[in-house]
Amino acid sequence: MNEQAYASLYANTLLQDVIPFWMQHSGDASYGGYLTCLDRKGKTFDTDKFIWLQCRQVWCFSMLYNRVEQKQEWLDFALQGAEFLKKFGRDAQGNWYFSLTREGKPLVQPYNIFSDCFAAMAFGQLSQATQDKAHSEIAIHTYHNILKRQENPKGSYNKAFPGTRPLQSFALPMIMCNLILEMEHLLAPEEVDRIIQHGSRTVMDTFYQPDSGQILENVNEDGSFSDTFEGRLLNPGHALEAMWFIIDLAARTSDQPLIRKAVDISLNTLEYSWDRRYGGIFYFMDIKGHPPQALEWDQKLWWVHMETLISLLKGFLQTGDQRCWQWFEKVHDYCWTHFADPEYGEWYGYLNRRGEVLIPQKGGKWKGCFHVPRGLYQCWQTLDSIAEKSSTVTPQ
Amino acid sequence: MNEQAYASLYANTLLQDVIPFWMQHSGDASYGGYLTCLDRKGKTFDTDKFIWLQCRQVWCFSMLYNRVEQKQEWLDFALQGAEFLKKFGRDAQGNWYFSLTREGKPLVQPYNIFSDCFAAMAFGQLSQATQDKAHSEIAIHTYHNILKRQENPKGSYNKAFPGTRPLQSFALPMIMCNLILEMEHLLAPEEVDRIIQHGSRTVMDTFYQPDSGQILENVNEDGSFSDTFEGRLLNPGHALEAMWFIIDLAARTSDQPLIRKAVDISLNTLEYSWDRRYGGIFYFMDIKGHPPQALEWDQKLWWVHMETLISLLKGFLQTGDQRCWQWFEKVHDYCWTHFADPEYGEWYGYLNRRGEVLIPQKGGKWKGCFHVPRGLYQCWQTLDSIAEKSSTVTPQ
Repeated sequence: MNEQAYASLYANTLLQDVIPFWMQHSGDASYGGYLTCLDRKGKTFDTDKFIWLQCRQVWCFSMLYNRVEQKQEWLDFALQGAEFLKKFGRDAQGNWYFSLTREGKPLVQPYNIFSDCFAAMAFGQLSQATQDKAHSEIAIHTYHNILKRQENPKGSYNKAFPGTRPLQSFALPMIMCNLILEMEHLLAPEEVDRIIQHGSRTVMDTFYQPDSGQILENVNEDGSFSDTFEGRLLNPGHALEAMWFIIDLAARTSDQPLIRKAVDISLNTLEYSWDRRYGGIFYFMDIKGHPPQALEWDQKLWWVHMETLISLLKGFLQTGDQRCWQWFEKVHDYCWTHFADPEYGEWYGYLNRRGEVLIPQKGGKWKGCFHVPRGLYQCWQTLDSIAEKSSTVTPQ
Repeated sequence: MNEQAYASLYANTLLQDVIPFWMQHSGDASYGGYLTCLDRKGKTFDTDKFIWLQCRQVWCFSMLYNRVEQKQEWLDFALQGAEFLKKFGRDAQGNWYFSLTREGKPLVQPYNIFSDCFAAMAFGQLSQATQDKAHSEIAIHTYHNILKRQENPKGSYNKAFPGTRPLQSFALPMIMCNLILEMEHLLAPEEVDRIIQHGSRTVMDTFYQPDSGQILENVNEDGSFSDTFEGRLLNPGHALEAMWFIIDLAARTSDQPLIRKAVDISLNTLEYSWDRRYGGIFYFMDIKGHPPQALEWDQKLWWVHMETLISLLKGFLQTGDQRCWQWFEKVHDYCWTHFADPEYGEWYGYLNRRGEVLIPQKGGKWKGCFHVPRGLYQCWQTLDSIAEKSSTVTPQ
């Protein structure tokens, strides 16, 4: 397939398969918001509402409206989630709960700062569509709350004994590198610049370890390696996802060395974490080769692979490195053979090491309307740019 | 194999394989306590100390000393763990931390009441060996602390929003049914009786659901079914383990109907959770057939199978139900073929659904010197009793 054929496949899958799946099955007409626990065919099997997924779906439909086409039904679908979230999603301090009942009663306390990150992302993107001050205010207030909480994100729910082994975690700085672009229209340019500088330095200098060529999930406060379960942990999907966030940031100023570094890290990570026996990317690894604590370490997860496709295409667009394109085709084949469900649409989320479907559900507590549509959109757009570029440089 | 041959196999594996493995590899000569993160050959790959496992190992060596043989080296090995725990294991209120560094600095706060349960068990059993008041006082103080904390075991670390979905969890009442017998010599008979009555009623009436014949992991406060992820959860290993605790309690008063019920539940659970395709018992299931949230749901874990062997043998000893013996032979074959490691000793802990070794380590954060030796001891003793009984009833 050439770039244009790939681009069409990604666009068509997004617009004719994945988005219709969520529009048809996930709207909660009775209570608002979305039902995300959907079986293979899209039937609801549980009604709990997880803030991550509610927010991510608001973001997704707002993004489609802003960037693909101003379809009223997409905006309405985003608004139905936003209304539910506005009413029920936060405690009195504006911290976002982790989950709610179908009707909106809080189930799990706001211990998880990523709920706030995805809320800021949702209302930031939505406010671009609606120009509604109520939406931008929620985004801005939530954003400042994240900054306030970032040194101790779990607050009183943090079970680590203070001082014994203070580790820095990769997840939040990584998410900030993406969130900041979602919030850009609502923040002062200096603030955006500050976060970008700090975020990309943290990701590329603190968590990236030149010796191994890998990004660690947790490091000591001074950035050194911690030879502990947490310190040895690799989360290749996280590292690969972060690399397209970094490429996006670096592309703003055509920072070629930073782009090159991000591409090299992507390729290293992929070489390291690709399962040579059965194909696919491992979920967790231990940098010293011990087994990670998570028993699901060898499973193949949809988001890991989708984020990898994005990084490879953005890397190829920016550098023309043929290894990116070769890996893209390999990971693409794996995904389309293993994750896609041509019969009922959308992607499976969880495969065992061999690539067999472990859990046939299309949505649950962690998988919703986010990584698949965002990835399809990002790949589609990037493939279009690659096709355009190659048609410009090719002699006519 | 006959009962006597099985009994010898279990005794020999305990005394010549498993106990030597832990004595040789797990003692921390530098800092006291035990190193439990051991690779396939017994080599340490991480030095964090998990209170569950420290306590369980103290219990194990105390139990061997009390019930198998008064070997000084066993008592000394128990004491080396107990000394470390006495010094470093508790906060100022006497709550047990979840984990410590190798040197004994607290790593994870006392959010987990099972740390306290296993501490009470350890010091209770040890005090029988030492008759040392310091040991019995720790056991008794910890026991009362558990009673105080049992309504909200996670305390301020509980992330459930109060009141929205108050569920009762099976784990603590189940553990109490076993702990009470470990503590019996330290408590007033009425207290023991009260806990036994309450524990066996809770397990057998509240969590056992006659319609399905299954024990649920969580139920509503009034004991009714909660159609939620937590409420639908089955943990077959828990249910099977609990049944031998109940048989032990019922055998004290020869309560035949209770024994019969426990045996029936064991057999039902096993029929329901046995993997007909690859053999072995699933780790988690959903009573409505949805996938459980835990991605490791289809894995085969050592403790689940060991606890099942105990329940089947105790059930057979008490009732003579041939199905118990048939299942015992089937589960035994599975274990000896899949979990045992004749080359380096001890058992693997984690197999994938197909029964292939997922993680070759012999110990880690959750697997230590406990389920394998306790199970081997319990099976050995029960097989001896079965053999004795059958030689008495067989005409000479």
